[in-house]
Amino acid sequence: MRIDIERLSAEIDELSAISEWPAPAVTRVLFSPEDMRARAWFVEKCQAAGLSVRTDAVGNIFARREGTEPGLRALATGSHTDAIPNAGKFDGVVGVLGGLEAIRALDEAGHQLRHPIELIFFTAEEPTRFGIGCLGSRLLAGTLAPDQADSLVDRNGRTLAELREAANFQGALGDVRLEPGHYAAFLELHIEQGPTLERESLDIGVVEKIAAPAAWRVTFSGEGGHAGAVLMPERHDAGLGAAEAALALERFVLASESPDTVGTTGVVRLHPGAINSIPCEAVLEMDIRDTQLPSRDLVLENLDRALHEIAARRGLKVAKETISEDPPATCDPRLLEAIERAAAGLKSRRMISRAYHDSLFMARIAPTAMIFIPCRNGWSHRPDEFSSPTQIQRGVEVLARTLVEADAGF
Amino acid sequence: MRIDIERLSAEIDELSAISEWPAPAVTRVLFSPEDMRARAWFVEKCQAAGLSVRTDAVGNIFARREGTEPGLRALATGSHTDAIPNAGKFDGVVGVLGGLEAIRALDEAGHQLRHPIELIFFTAEEPTRFGIGCLGSRLLAGTLAPDQADSLVDRNGRTLAELREAANFQGALGDVRLEPGHYAAFLELHIEQGPTLERESLDIGVVEKIAAPAAWRVTFSGEGGHAGAVLMPERHDAGLGAAEAALALERFVLASESPDTVGTTGVVRLHPGAINSIPCEAVLEMDIRDTQLPSRDLVLENLDRALHEIAARRGLKVAKETISEDPPATCDPRLLEAIERAAAGLKSRRMISRAYHDSLFMARIAPTAMIFIPCRNGWSHRPDEFSSPTQIQRGVEVLARTLVEADAGF
Repeated sequence: MRIDIERLSAEIDELSAISEWPAPAVTRVLFSPEDMRARAWFVEKCQAAGLSVRTDAVGNIFARREGTEPGLRALATGSHTDAIPNAGKFDGVVGVLGGLEAIRALDEAGHQLRHPIELIFFTAEEPTRFGIGCLGSRLLAGTLAPDQADSLVDRNGRTLAELREAANFQGALGDVRLEPGHYAAFLELHIEQGPTLERESLDIGVVEKIAAPAAWRVTFSGEGGHAGAVLMPERHDAGLGAAEAALALERFVLASESPDTVGTTGVVRLHPGAINSIPCEAVLEMDIRDTQLPSRDLVLENLDRALHEIAARRGLKVAKETISEDPPATCDPRLLEAIERAAAGLKSRRMISRAYHDSLFMARIAPTAMIFIPCRNGWSHRPDEFSSPTQIQRGVEVLARTLVEADAGF
Repeated sequence: MRIDIERLSAEIDELSAISEWPAPAVTRVLFSPEDMRARAWFVEKCQAAGLSVRTDAVGNIFARREGTEPGLRALATGSHTDAIPNAGKFDGVVGVLGGLEAIRALDEAGHQLRHPIELIFFTAEEPTRFGIGCLGSRLLAGTLAPDQADSLVDRNGRTLAELREAANFQGALGDVRLEPGHYAAFLELHIEQGPTLERESLDIGVVEKIAAPAAWRVTFSGEGGHAGAVLMPERHDAGLGAAEAALALERFVLASESPDTVGTTGVVRLHPGAINSIPCEAVLEMDIRDTQLPSRDLVLENLDRALHEIAARRGLKVAKETISEDPPATCDPRLLEAIERAAAGLKSRRMISRAYHDSLFMARIAPTAMIFIPCRNGWSHRPDEFSSPTQIQRGVEVLARTLVEADAGF
């Protein structure tokens, strides 16, 4: 099997140009004009490769190659192409376009498989629009209630129900769900988004566990007023409550016994947000992850207590909304072995994914594993995110060979 | 003289409906469609009152009533109508529409004055658009260089030069400046934006000093990255630097020996601003005020040192831009006495303005004083900002009578 890395690299570049922010930044937010253009572009590429395409009610796209043995369940692979503001061109994209390239390589090598293959373009792995990540795969796995999903509201007050109708994604969200066992297996190729593979000069990471993420939206409400006229003892400044909360999260994470605990306050919105006005409201979005549930949950408990202590001391109200609190996923041992056989001759190691992927949810309904490739300095979610053509080529080769291995074993 | 408070209240309500945010909130940002509509509405009202209107190159509007004695300089009064996001309907507006009502009351009482009166509608007292307050009065007083002003850039990358051309404010900014002595006196009627008058059951505040404001824009730059993948020891989170800076400002202000020192972080912007992304940049806008320059400047010194300490400790870069650092203003003793004579029969006291007004800059070129009226709970910059019709009526009466007093004395 020959991976045409020139073709694939050209496609990665082509897709990266469909971006709201200018190059080298890539920004494609769910339902933005760029997201919609990227979808149309991807469907064309799949059809040109002879795949049949269906789109479900939340916009997950399934591109199918038939197998030779009737009645066998499909082997699935895929990832996402949506990108947060000011991101790079490889996160997610390598798994989607790499999956397409793997299928084309099988075709061009005349490799018939017994199983069908389905390449999945997941809707909104990134939480940018609605604050919740993996929207498409959560619905596929049935871990998010369709009604709750349709009621999600973006910053402009528009619901998912409204936006998916406008995007022409027909049908009820309830129909998105796939039964456990629908797929024979699921594989996701992805950049590592961490420094391990690069540091150890490895080609392939065989992901055996995916870290458990939790995301909270915290709102402090205080009292506004003129920044010149209200004296300090009379203030109930929601922005300062938010500042303390962000620092408290950092403190609890640093005190964790697990070196893998991370906590981030990536979003802070102050209202009214004027230089001469005391913030009456502050909204924080906080993300806490760990490879171990107990140490993550200890941070959550400490943080929750701190939020109330801060609010009480400052005369603020605090409200907490749980955006997600997902358990970690364990990958399928037979698939891990299949990847390792496929990676024979390359340097690989087993590892943990600290970032959160559609695989976390696909693991609920199918034997699942992930294939990581190195990325420069472990950087991602930034314009200078980079994996070399050779690194990508090796990853796609391993993906294609793993499909062949799984075709025999599943 | 009879103040028609029904007419004035109806006009205040009418103007409050010209707002970007729905009632009861009022939002009118410089050069917004609402600001432009408010201007057109105001010019009509002035023309209906028989005033001649001119607009300068930055959009300051001057509505003039001629005097009886040729060659005398005008007595000026006025304030602003722009409103920060989610503000109320009285801040500034009481001085503009109250000024118009005072002129109409003089007319209707057949009160000819020796001096002309100029009612000034100042452009952008609020700093919302360009981060700098009192744009119009700074340029009138010559404390802001025209070139520097024209190069101001808003959040969307548009310059003042561009926007004022689009708004059809003709001419060079250099022509806006008025010579010291251009006006015989300047008076500004305004809501207190503090609780003193209400607490002491007073009708009128006679402002003898205006606090010295300073405003900084602080930018921390760190390193972005994926919120799941970058471990804590490797982070350089600009958002956490910002959180520390906001709390440091509060700490220094609370430690100040002057009870009048206030400090506010009203704006925080994180980039990229996504829940799963470590902030690579954080922009803060901080406002520090005091009635005494030494205690304010001590806070600035401490804050500056803290910004560098935070940046060094966290491996961030920090850049500081001084938006303004203005000295306090002292009001004219003869005008203060004139206000007190005009307020005979009402309960008044001398006081300090902690908020910052166009008077701060007008005081550089004309004998200046301010007349305060009470507002509920001292609230302003919020939708429930409120002064009663009676409170407003008394303020406008005092303004009108002070113009008569000043007509004799200046």
